[in-house]
Amino acid sequence: MENKFVNYFSRMTPLSVEESDVIAKSMVTRAYKKGTILLKEGQQSVDTYFILEGCIREYIITDGEEKTTNFFTEEQWVISLSNFSPQSPSTHYLACVEDCTVVVGNEQQAREMFRNFPRFETISRAIVEADFAQQKKVLTSYLTDTPEQRYLKLLESRPDLFQRIPQYQIASYIGVKPESLSRIRKRVVLKFK
Amino acid sequence: MENKFVNYFSRMTPLSVEESDVIAKSMVTRAYKKGTILLKEGQQSVDTYFILEGCIREYIITDGEEKTTNFFTEEQWVISLSNFSPQSPSTHYLACVEDCTVVVGNEQQAREMFRNFPRFETISRAIVEADFAQQKKVLTSYLTDTPEQRYLKLLESRPDLFQRIPQYQIASYIGVKPESLSRIRKRVVLKFK
Repeated sequence: MENKFVNYFSRMTPLSVEESDVIAKSMVTRAYKKGTILLKEGQQSVDTYFILEGCIREYIITDGEEKTTNFFTEEQWVISLSNFSPQSPSTHYLACVEDCTVVVGNEQQAREMFRNFPRFETISRAIVEADFAQQKKVLTSYLTDTPEQRYLKLLESRPDLFQRIPQYQIASYIGVKPESLSRIRKRVVLKFK
Repeated sequence: MENKFVNYFSRMTPLSVEESDVIAKSMVTRAYKKGTILLKEGQQSVDTYFILEGCIREYIITDGEEKTTNFFTEEQWVISLSNFSPQSPSTHYLACVEDCTVVVGNEQQAREMFRNFPRFETISRAIVEADFAQQKKVLTSYLTDTPEQRYLKLLESRPDLFQRIPQYQIASYIGVKPESLSRIRKRVVLKFK
């Protein structure tokens, strides 16, 4: 598991032995049972998570209804709005869809690391920027895509999710009721037969 | 105008005379006429903009219709998805709603600066993170707020926009037709009379 984290960074940039060591030694891992809620709306969070194993679902509750905004799986970062702005409590919930093992980090710990290894700040910036870009794609998709298009995009980009996530959560991510998701699936199957 | 850019940074962190000088000397400003389109869907952009004066509108076109996703005004950064990922052409348009004066930057120029002044990378990271957080708020608002709530939030957080932006663009940002915006405004006026 340690290796997974170090390998992740070494794929972004070649690491010296010392740098690999620092990453391996600094990493704090935690295990959470399926169903654990890591963050609730209104709470303040300083933790970011890197998923070694498992799946975390991000959602909001509006008018008593859950709307799923993201699924995070292996080698993805879960970065909270409230990580960046101490004045902003979280607008989202984070919950473990499966048993999860994660690396936990926070800004203070990151800053110490950057002081000793300024190069890590460049890597960290690239990670946040990639996440920012992904976020923007999600927003654009909400504005432009039909539920059927959202379903097809998800199927294409993250087929594993369909094996891991309950149907009603996939439906909530696509933005439809579970019955509508069934209809969409049938339509798509007919189209591509 | 130069001062505006240096002051912006010095409000984030105290700057040495040398650092202020470097920022002032490195800045490249450009002026654009109202109506100029800075970026189109499908184009690749390496430029980021810091607005010294004016307003830039970000929008997408879907089914032949414009949907406004953001307005950027003085002291805001306009960061494009395609800045981060050279494989991703822009999904958005950027257009000047007013005559604009902007500072133009790009990743290569930034990297050179960070090499000489690593502290600037920390500042840059904070800027991207704040933008990321703002982006997340926009997404959440689309999922949870009614058009009336979106109107009220915009009125509260950015009242200046209502003096600067044509009604139909405000309507497109809130996610309604111009006629509906008129009705919302009337309803709100009645409620708070």
